[in-house]
Amino acid sequence: MSAWVLPDHIADVLPSEARHIEELRRELLDTARAYGYELVMPPMLEHLESLLTGTGEALDLQTFKLVDQLSGRMLGLRADTTPQVARIDAHLLNRPGVTRLCYCGPVLHTRPDRPHATREPLQFGAEIYGHAGLEADAEALLLALDCLRATKVAPLTVDMADARIVRALVAGLGLDAPRLAALHAALATKDATELAALTKSFPAAESAALQALIGLYGDAKVLAEAAQVLPATPAIREALEQLKWLASRVEGAAVRFDLADLRGYAYYSGVRFGIYTPGASDALVRGGRYDEVGAVFGRNRPAVGFSLDVKELVGVAENRPLKAAIRAPWLDSGAADAAELRASIAALRRSGETVVCALPGHESTVDEFRCDRELARDAAGRWAVRAL
Amino acid sequence: MSAWVLPDHIADVLPSEARHIEELRRELLDTARAYGYELVMPPMLEHLESLLTGTGEALDLQTFKLVDQLSGRMLGLRADTTPQVARIDAHLLNRPGVTRLCYCGPVLHTRPDRPHATREPLQFGAEIYGHAGLEADAEALLLALDCLRATKVAPLTVDMADARIVRALVAGLGLDAPRLAALHAALATKDATELAALTKSFPAAESAALQALIGLYGDAKVLAEAAQVLPATPAIREALEQLKWLASRVEGAAVRFDLADLRGYAYYSGVRFGIYTPGASDALVRGGRYDEVGAVFGRNRPAVGFSLDVKELVGVAENRPLKAAIRAPWLDSGAADAAELRASIAALRRSGETVVCALPGHESTVDEFRCDRELARDAAGRWAVRAL
Repeated sequence: MSAWVLPDHIADVLPSEARHIEELRRELLDTARAYGYELVMPPMLEHLESLLTGTGEALDLQTFKLVDQLSGRMLGLRADTTPQVARIDAHLLNRPGVTRLCYCGPVLHTRPDRPHATREPLQFGAEIYGHAGLEADAEALLLALDCLRATKVAPLTVDMADARIVRALVAGLGLDAPRLAALHAALATKDATELAALTKSFPAAESAALQALIGLYGDAKVLAEAAQVLPATPAIREALEQLKWLASRVEGAAVRFDLADLRGYAYYSGVRFGIYTPGASDALVRGGRYDEVGAVFGRNRPAVGFSLDVKELVGVAENRPLKAAIRAPWLDSGAADAAELRASIAALRRSGETVVCALPGHESTVDEFRCDRELARDAAGRWAVRAL
Repeated sequence: MSAWVLPDHIADVLPSEARHIEELRRELLDTARAYGYELVMPPMLEHLESLLTGTGEALDLQTFKLVDQLSGRMLGLRADTTPQVARIDAHLLNRPGVTRLCYCGPVLHTRPDRPHATREPLQFGAEIYGHAGLEADAEALLLALDCLRATKVAPLTVDMADARIVRALVAGLGLDAPRLAALHAALATKDATELAALTKSFPAAESAALQALIGLYGDAKVLAEAAQVLPATPAIREALEQLKWLASRVEGAAVRFDLADLRGYAYYSGVRFGIYTPGASDALVRGGRYDEVGAVFGRNRPAVGFSLDVKELVGVAENRPLKAAIRAPWLDSGAADAAELRASIAALRRSGETVVCALPGHESTVDEFRCDRELARDAAGRWAVRAL
């Protein structure tokens, strides 16, 4: 096998796409900063128990493991940044009030999430800790929408769900983990046949409610319908009211509800949302409330947040053209007017221009940067920029 | 052991430092872009033979290895980005002329390089492929200096060496790898006793030259001295001439020579440089010519480049104060004048300001961003920014 063949679902990012990713990255971080979210950079590698305690089996299976030769302990390569940020909030910052944090860096997955997914997403996310009220959910959702708008992704649809609904419906059933996982999978894929089989032995009310759930997909009418067909437990009533309140705060995006949606990580504990746009094969953004993630670090703080893969965004965000560059000759500093040329080049670069010096013998080869101007002597013998 | 304890030599980067790193990262990438270097993003994970073939034992020992469950093959986590960029130049871009590439991303090391070094540097680098002439060496060195100037690191000292000198001295001796490694180590640490022992069986000329090498450290006089005490082989003569030429192109930094310095990776093949500043425990930048790195990918192109650890730079770069933020009240969109407040906040954020909304009940807690202004109603009842 050739030395340049990369592992499956792993790819290099070449110049034009890399430039675009870097621009998106800055726009996302600047948008979060404008909302008061502070940047943190958790490490790629951690002890396995820090990364995985309380986060569920899916994240465990997605995590590459290796041995630390310094300590002999097992390390994991992060597959998701949220548990790390919860650890930072709980242990390192340990602030009494609200903490807003954001991050942007690679995560690695042992297996691709979807048939054409990368195993190395560039995960950007923002999280707000310490506020149990819905205002935090609203801020996270509105920030996620603003982030997508900053990167010129349109139109946007918000899909909303709530982790408490399914949890309330199965709470009294005493299901073991494999049966619960099978139930979640049947709900996520809206598989009515499988769901009927799985819920056959359940009490009639829970069985009917779970089967009704997969039909509870669509616009605002879904909430009214859910209030009728789902049991009116306090948790379910609160979830439906909060979804309604939150949906009314969304502007400039369509809102839909999908009450059976449980995809993504197991740590969600309340309102959940996904943001979609045509042309993307899956949700661009996934977010919601996950009040219990920090518990393992000794501080069970309210938490809401979202994340997205910047590499996925490139496919749907408006592409910006590369700014054309200026070509300049190479003059050895021994040459008489080299100092003047060097000063001109430095001034242009300081002003934000790209100035590419043609190295001797390569004057005719096409350069990667499209040069539409060149630095050359004008009639008065001074160095000036002219069109090519 | 507590769940929040990180592995040795692995650390979180908390807000104030993370902000600084992000600012430095942008300045470095923008400086390279202004010179016409295109950004690439090679993956964190590759097949082991792509990462390590031809790069020497030091990089191998530094590389974390794991098994790809999709293929059963061995993967490595990159410990250095240069071999990856050489692969991209050789195989993916495959351009006839000059290619300038840059990158910035984490690398991981199994063991720290130095007693207090991180095992997760954030490696920034720039590389120029396809030009064998010294102009490329000069551009790489001057760009490295400009990158450090852009991040306000001063004063700077350039240490220069050349991989060809030691290579020429040991070429005819038929040393095996362990003896060569011991020799390099003795030279790097300037251990005269060890060197005398290692070279005892060598021919008198080579033994004397190798022992003289560790004294060849200092300013420009070193080159004249080297011409006298080292054998006048064509390779050594060329190396000394090129060092002299290149040193004369450096402006705004002191230049020193250290002809015994062989630290860093084994792939260097010509002029090498390190850039130092007071307060940093080691070279901030290491660079030079490594014409043979692309050979394993079927394209043995001339190459020069450098790299640095952005995390290391934070300790010596000028720290910029955090721009103070504006505090705004949280108004539910049901409130009468919420739309006006939201519009004011959005306009301030677009203009580059950080506006932090105080969530209900948290108005009194100190916020992470220092708020020196607040958005409040003025006498006329309109929302306006005022000092706090």
